[in-house]
Amino acid sequence: MKQAKKKNQDFFQVYGINGTSNVIQAKKISILRIDIMVGGLAEKKSWVVNLFRKNSLPVHRIPKAQFLKHYNDKRTQGIVVTFTGKIIRNIPSFDKGTYNICLLAMDNVEDPQNLGQIIRTAECAGIDGILIPEHGNVQVTNTVLQVSQGAFIHLPLYNCGNLHQQLRNLKSQGFWIIGVENSIQAKYWHEQDYKRKLVIVMGNEGNGISPLIRKTCDDLLTIPMQGVLNSLNVSAAVSAVLFERHRQMLLSCSN
Amino acid sequence: MKQAKKKNQDFFQVYGINGTSNVIQAKKISILRIDIMVGGLAEKKSWVVNLFRKNSLPVHRIPKAQFLKHYNDKRTQGIVVTFTGKIIRNIPSFDKGTYNICLLAMDNVEDPQNLGQIIRTAECAGIDGILIPEHGNVQVTNTVLQVSQGAFIHLPLYNCGNLHQQLRNLKSQGFWIIGVENSIQAKYWHEQDYKRKLVIVMGNEGNGISPLIRKTCDDLLTIPMQGVLNSLNVSAAVSAVLFERHRQMLLSCSN
Repeated sequence: MKQAKKKNQDFFQVYGINGTSNVIQAKKISILRIDIMVGGLAEKKSWVVNLFRKNSLPVHRIPKAQFLKHYNDKRTQGIVVTFTGKIIRNIPSFDKGTYNICLLAMDNVEDPQNLGQIIRTAECAGIDGILIPEHGNVQVTNTVLQVSQGAFIHLPLYNCGNLHQQLRNLKSQGFWIIGVENSIQAKYWHEQDYKRKLVIVMGNEGNGISPLIRKTCDDLLTIPMQGVLNSLNVSAAVSAVLFERHRQMLLSCSN
Repeated sequence: MKQAKKKNQDFFQVYGINGTSNVIQAKKISILRIDIMVGGLAEKKSWVVNLFRKNSLPVHRIPKAQFLKHYNDKRTQGIVVTFTGKIIRNIPSFDKGTYNICLLAMDNVEDPQNLGQIIRTAECAGIDGILIPEHGNVQVTNTVLQVSQGAFIHLPLYNCGNLHQQLRNLKSQGFWIIGVENSIQAKYWHEQDYKRKLVIVMGNEGNGISPLIRKTCDDLLTIPMQGVLNSLNVSAAVSAVLFERHRQMLLSCSN
């Protein structure tokens, strides 16, 4: 928990028109600095022009040469936002959570691009939160936040400490735990009934779900591959599973 | 077509244990050079050790300092493969194609990471080929091939020239053309019957499908968003759509 507290006081930085627009509108974070390049793409957007009228925001127009010297390795589109805030929250009790609440848990996901994409997809698919263990997993870095395109503002990211203990705790709160892995002998992903209080566990990119976590799962699901390779990316697997859940939800609403 | 021919003579380069293992086994390309770092991760794999016994392969063991100097900006895992070959093919006639043949078409997809992920996902989902227009779209670069993790070896990538003309041509061969876009008034993605000769068109990351191509589509599909943002990544949308198709195929087989 000490580590989580420390991380919450870190500075973060995102760039690009779409990603920063979500961050600037957010109430839960504190904007430290908005750098806008003179003559850049961002400066042509009306919402960026409006920023200059708000005295409360620390907006800086930076000459092109100076901006590029500082941010040369990024596809900034002429806007970079530095901020601080409680990006990772402590996990609350879901005891009184609604019937269809769905959390996504990361079990040793290593790649920041993958975690960022997963956050973005999960927000679009109406997931209620992502559990990020304190050890083993990639942590929430600038790359993760950047790739998520601002989705972290709307989707709670929970520091869940030890994932095994947390899953047992969630089980006691009525959650059903399912693990998803490629190429295992298991139920197909679409044979699962997702209309319940659910935690969906995604494993490591190379090794899948760790043995102890696998034992904790109530169900294991697999997506059978149709090609020669057996390497569906974990964020693509998340999309297949979450939109199958979404499909089931839509059908249950229309019935 | 001239451009395509020129591209086919280019040199390509991929790195990392998984990606290169798919490339080295491929018959359709010509390996120019395999660089392996002394003391690197790759050198510990038995299939890499076996490479040294094959006199036909141009394998080079490179001292660590020299290897890192040359490939310092990449997560190589100690192996880099340089090759040439006909990565992009000319599109054949599908007149006699099977009933369920499914192609994916890129309409101004710009990001090489997205195209690479789409190739990888499409190979896993059993798609029969990807149409890449000659203009507007991101072309097949080292980044695209790298991100695809070798999927381009097994999934045909077709240079389709002008996409509008190509779609009309495919229509005359019995294909049904569907376009997928976020947040439009359209049929939901799971309401489509995918069990037919099909082209699925994915549009630009920011602007969706271009007007002329949209008019050419027989059906438009959408994935309704469940969160606050409206920014499902195009590769995540591909995964949702292709695995919905896969689900329908599995169900039709089991019926």
